Amino acid sequence: MSLPCDLQSIEQRITSLVHAFMDMEGAPIPSSLAHTARLTADQAITSSEGGKRLRAMLALGAWREVASGQALSDAVQAQAMLDLACAIEVFQTAALVHDDIIDDADLRRGRPSAHRALEQGTGSLPIGRGLGLMLGDLLATACTGIADDASTRLPASGRLRRTFLDMQRDVEIGQVLDLAIEQMPLDDPAALCEASYEVFRWKTASYTTIAPLRLAFLAGGMDPADADTHAEDIGLPLGVAFQLADDLLDVTSSSLQTGKPVGGDIREGKRTVLLADALDEADGAQQAWLRAAYEAPARSEEQIRQVIALFERTGAIEASRARIANMWRMARLAIERLGLDTAHTATLTALCARFVPEDVRSR
Amino acid sequence: MSLPCDLQSIEQRITSLVHAFMDMEGAPIPSSLAHTARLTADQAITSSEGGKRLRAMLALGAWREVASGQALSDAVQAQAMLDLACAIEVFQTAALVHDDIIDDADLRRGRPSAHRALEQGTGSLPIGRGLGLMLGDLLATACTGIADDASTRLPASGRLRRTFLDMQRDVEIGQVLDLAIEQMPLDDPAALCEASYEVFRWKTASYTTIAPLRLAFLAGGMDPADADTHAEDIGLPLGVAFQLADDLLDVTSSSLQTGKPVGGDIREGKRTVLLADALDEADGAQQAWLRAAYEAPARSEEQIRQVIALFERTGAIEASRARIANMWRMARLAIERLGLDTAHTATLTALCARFVPEDVRSR
Repeated sequence: MSLPCDLQSIEQRITSLVHAFMDMEGAPIPSSLAHTARLTADQAITSSEGGKRLRAMLALGAWREVASGQALSDAVQAQAMLDLACAIEVFQTAALVHDDIIDDADLRRGRPSAHRALEQGTGSLPIGRGLGLMLGDLLATACTGIADDASTRLPASGRLRRTFLDMQRDVEIGQVLDLAIEQMPLDDPAALCEASYEVFRWKTASYTTIAPLRLAFLAGGMDPADADTHAEDIGLPLGVAFQLADDLLDVTSSSLQTGKPVGGDIREGKRTVLLADALDEADGAQQAWLRAAYEAPARSEEQIRQVIALFERTGAIEASRARIANMWRMARLAIERLGLDTAHTATLTALCARFVPEDVRSR
Repeated sequence: MSLPCDLQSIEQRITSLVHAFMDMEGAPIPSSLAHTARLTADQAITSSEGGKRLRAMLALGAWREVASGQALSDAVQAQAMLDLACAIEVFQTAALVHDDIIDDADLRRGRPSAHRALEQGTGSLPIGRGLGLMLGDLLATACTGIADDASTRLPASGRLRRTFLDMQRDVEIGQVLDLAIEQMPLDDPAALCEASYEVFRWKTASYTTIAPLRLAFLAGGMDPADADTHAEDIGLPLGVAFQLADDLLDVTSSSLQTGKPVGGDIREGKRTVLLADALDEADGAQQAWLRAAYEAPARSEEQIRQVIALFERTGAIEASRARIANMWRMARLAIERLGLDTAHTATLTALCARFVPEDVRSR
């Protein structure tokens, strides 16, 4: 059997898994409350739709490159690996639902964020926000259940479950650190840059690249210590490159590409490596202006444009491109250290390349 | 070995488990962010302290009544059962942290609620609230990990994990329904009463009584179908009695007893069985006044006193006492149906009696 690892199969499976988890047919839901229960269950599906599924595809693809022929031809294991990959995506949705509440974001993937949609659906801001918070909790429980169920059908099931839980914990700690970074003073660009890199490990690389690789390597039968080392060696620079590219995209792309408003990070006053690099290269007047703009409670559209112009002029955008290229180089070397044959190395490299923009990769 | 199931052993073990989960020593936390990470980790401990531990004691006590002598004398199983019982308590803390954000509550167990304490600690309302949200997520991940780890050291580990996850899901759905009930019209007291009872099953009985009993019965080696039936038959009326008593306590006790302000439910406009009973027995003028008071955006201290007086005068408080007594009778009959010998039945009954106020039980 060939493993379905195309976007459509992943998408369908996610919908079906989330639907099964949220299904309350036959459960004693009083009819007077059924409307809100339905609204929340529907939003669980809507919020789960439309991701790029990079993480699921990495997990599935990496498993295919390292697992034995026997494992690959085992339909039970292939289905379980698909479900485990989908569990990572469901976890991401859970995290994004809470993230959008924390950031008070209106949009996600070009549609209203979950709490905003639930506010509209119930006609109440506090109830919509409460339902959004619970939806994030429900999806987090859902992904744990999906991962647990998939793990029992794969080798090293205890380690797979532990890896999945560690991933959840790392991302949650990453979100705590990400909030902490918002309170960092802006007078030490080097410290800001260093802190950002560390936070990238926790909040992004953890679940974007390290855990998908680690789960794939463990499920594929790799020695646990090797699985940990290789997943970290490849996943850390790759995940950092991905986050740097994401932050870059925020200031260089259009809303149409990202489904989010341009310069959204600047609007929120988010501390990024771009900001650290700009502060580092700016002259005294520019530095003072940047710091004042970021320390103010809000930034106007005109200020956002000026910040982007400064990022360009100080060379911060170019510096981020160089940083991404450097991380990509490290990830490629780590892939080679896996010691796969040429064909498998090439396939895995192509899979990982999806996390890094092409123009930066081909430098 | 005798199983430590006293309050102090449970309390110490919870602190040690939460501490181990939140421990970031040796992890690459940038020093510039260490303060906020420490603040959050400390709050995880503070929020975990001071519960009555009724749920843990029920799980441990019920296990002791049904498990074999061999299982009881197995130190590994006894320690695992203690950890599983603690996991239920950690889950409750996670749920309360999010609940307090949803209700915008200032106090919990007589101390500042987690998000409020984190607001004070960071000097920022949005960052404190964001950290509170993440703290709830972290504690939810913690309890899953603790339960997973404990389950592997007990019989029927897969079923124990599934039961724990089902409990989490039920409570989360219960919170959704609890928000839905806030939007119910107040013109049909019977429908409000019926809906409240159903919500009690999801949001309270699920993790307060049903899951502790089910986990204890499964870990104690009971046939899974029997474990489900008995846990539901005992736990459902017992958990409903507990919630009815909790709602009653809100209007009949002092802040000193509950650690929450008196009449807090009325202040929040919470729909309760007390309100349903009062509406049902009130005359036209009282009914109109009650509905107006609950449909208003807020209620004054004077209105809260008047609502409590109406609960008394309409017989709603007495009706709740009768409801609790009836539920307790059903729970006792269900305990007898377990078919334990007289001594074990008496011990388990005494354990369950802790969930119901003595003055109502002894009617």
